[in-house]
Amino acid sequence: MTMFDKIALIGIGLIGSSIALGVRQNNLAKHISIATRKQSTLDEAKELNLGDSYFLDSKKAVIDADLIILCTPVGTFENITKYIAPFIKRGAILTDVGSVKAYVQDKLLPLIPAGVHFIPAHPMAGTEFSGPKAGFASLFTGRWCMLTPDENVSEDAVKILSEFWQNLGSNVEIMDAQHHDLVVAITSHVPHLIAYNIVGTASELEDVAKSEVIKYSAGGFRDFTRIAASDPIMWRDVFLTNRDAVLEMLEKFLRDLAKLQRAVEIGDGDMLEKLFTRTRAIRRSIIEAGQEVDAPDFGRKK
Amino acid sequence: MTMFDKIALIGIGLIGSSIALGVRQNNLAKHISIATRKQSTLDEAKELNLGDSYFLDSKKAVIDADLIILCTPVGTFENITKYIAPFIKRGAILTDVGSVKAYVQDKLLPLIPAGVHFIPAHPMAGTEFSGPKAGFASLFTGRWCMLTPDENVSEDAVKILSEFWQNLGSNVEIMDAQHHDLVVAITSHVPHLIAYNIVGTASELEDVAKSEVIKYSAGGFRDFTRIAASDPIMWRDVFLTNRDAVLEMLEKFLRDLAKLQRAVEIGDGDMLEKLFTRTRAIRRSIIEAGQEVDAPDFGRKK
Repeated sequence: MTMFDKIALIGIGLIGSSIALGVRQNNLAKHISIATRKQSTLDEAKELNLGDSYFLDSKKAVIDADLIILCTPVGTFENITKYIAPFIKRGAILTDVGSVKAYVQDKLLPLIPAGVHFIPAHPMAGTEFSGPKAGFASLFTGRWCMLTPDENVSEDAVKILSEFWQNLGSNVEIMDAQHHDLVVAITSHVPHLIAYNIVGTASELEDVAKSEVIKYSAGGFRDFTRIAASDPIMWRDVFLTNRDAVLEMLEKFLRDLAKLQRAVEIGDGDMLEKLFTRTRAIRRSIIEAGQEVDAPDFGRKK
Repeated sequence: MTMFDKIALIGIGLIGSSIALGVRQNNLAKHISIATRKQSTLDEAKELNLGDSYFLDSKKAVIDADLIILCTPVGTFENITKYIAPFIKRGAILTDVGSVKAYVQDKLLPLIPAGVHFIPAHPMAGTEFSGPKAGFASLFTGRWCMLTPDENVSEDAVKILSEFWQNLGSNVEIMDAQHHDLVVAITSHVPHLIAYNIVGTASELEDVAKSEVIKYSAGGFRDFTRIAASDPIMWRDVFLTNRDAVLEMLEKFLRDLAKLQRAVEIGDGDMLEKLFTRTRAIRRSIIEAGQEVDAPDFGRKK
C-alpha cells in the first residue's frame, strides 16, 4: 500500500530511523530520502540501508518529496524550515515528530509556503537510546500519535497523515496544540524532569557515595535512570519550548509533594496508605488500556 | 547443602514466598514452617506448597527453628517479636527483611532473649506484585542483601546468615544501620515517594483527564506507575520508620529541583544539557555493575 512517491526524513535518529524502517516494512513509499547534518550519522544511515538517497544538505532531500518529516530536536525546526521552505513542492505535507506542539505551530506556521500542508505531529514513543542504530520498525505499534493541525489545514491532508501513522502501527488522536502540551507535560515532560533531577541529586551526595548509589540501585532508583538516559539535546529543547505547561504541572507536583512531605514528618500513616492504594489502581488501568506490560518488573530479565 | 534443620518464615508475601522457593530449590533447610495472620494467605501458601507446616499463630512456627525470618511489614515487627521471643530456642538466628534498619535495631534489640542471635537484614529486591503467588526463587539472584549486625552479635552467626543469602543468589554487604537507612533513602525510598506523588498528581488534575493520562502514559509516566504500584502497607511503614533519612534526602532532591525549575523558567539550556548528559552516564555505570539490563526500555515487550 504505497502512499507516497517520496518521503523525506530530516534527521535520522531513533525516531527518524524507526519511521524509515516502518515505511520500508509496510511499503509506504517508493523512495526515502534522508538528510542529516553530520557525515558520520549519514554514513551510519547508509550502512543500515535506511533510505534510497542521502544528503548533508536538507534542501536536496526535500525536492519532489510528498511527505517531509522533521525528525531533529525541536530547537532546530525553525531554521530548518526557513531553509527548506522554498524547495518544498506544492501539495506536499510537512510534519514533524517533536514532543512540543504550540511552540512548533507558532514558529513554523508563518514560514509555510502557500500550497504546503503543515501538520504538527507527535508520536508518543521512544526508548532511552539515540541515533540511527537505535531505530526499529515496531516502535510505534500500539502507541498514540497526536496530530495538532491548524483549523485552516486541508482535511484530506490530515486524513492522509493519520493513515500514514496508522500504517506504522499507531493510534491517532487529533488534538489542540495547547492541550497537547499540557497532556505531555504531565505524562512525559515532568516525569523526565524529576527523573533527571533525582539521578542528579543521587550522584552528588556527600554522605552516600556514587558507587553505593550504583550498587544498590535496584531498590527503585534504577527505574529513573532509564528516562534520565534519554537524549540530552532533545530534552533540553523540550524544556526550552514547553516552559509554561511544564512549570504549571511541576507546581502541582510540588504542591502535592509538600503535603506528602508533611505526612511523613508528622507520621500520618492513613494519608500515606490511602495515596499508595490509589496509585496502585492506576497502573492496572494503564495495563488494561494496552499501554503497559502485565509482567512484574516490566518483564526485566536481570 | 542443608544449612538448617528448620527455618520459620513469619509472613509469606512476595519476599517470604521467594525465600521459601529459594530455600527449597537449594535445599537449605529440612523443614520450612510458615506463619501468617490471614487464613486465606495461609491457604494460598499451602496450595503453592511453599512450606512443610503452616500456622496462624506465629509462636507455633518458631518452636525449634534455627533461623527465623520476619517477612511482614516493618510496623508489625515489634509486636511479633514480643510475642514470639519466649518461644525462640537458644542459639537460633532471628532476622528480618525490612527496608529500614535503625528503627528495627532500636525497637527489637531490647526484646531479644539471651542466646538468640539477632541480625537485621535487607535483601534489596522486589517487584510491584505482592502476596505468596508473587514469589519466585531467582528474585534475589545478583541483588544485594545488606546485613546490619550490632557490634555485640556473634561473628559466626553473621557468617551463617551471610552464607544463607549467598546461597539464595545474593551478594552480601555488612553495613552500619544508620548508613543503610541513608543509602536506601536515596536509592529506594525517595524514588518511591516521588513516584507515588507524581502518579497521585497526574490522576487528580482539572485540565487533563485521568483517561488521557492513562492513554498517553508511554511518554514516561508509566515507568513511575510500576513502583507506585508497590505494596501500600509495606511502604506506609517504610515512611513511618525511616522518617529522618527520607526527609534529609527529600530536601536535597527539592533543593536541586528548585534549581532545575529556575533553569526552565529562565531558559538556561546549558544547565539543562549538562545535567542531562551527566545523568545519562550513570545508567551506563549501573548496567556495567550488573544491576540493570542493557536492553532498551527494560526489554519491555509492549
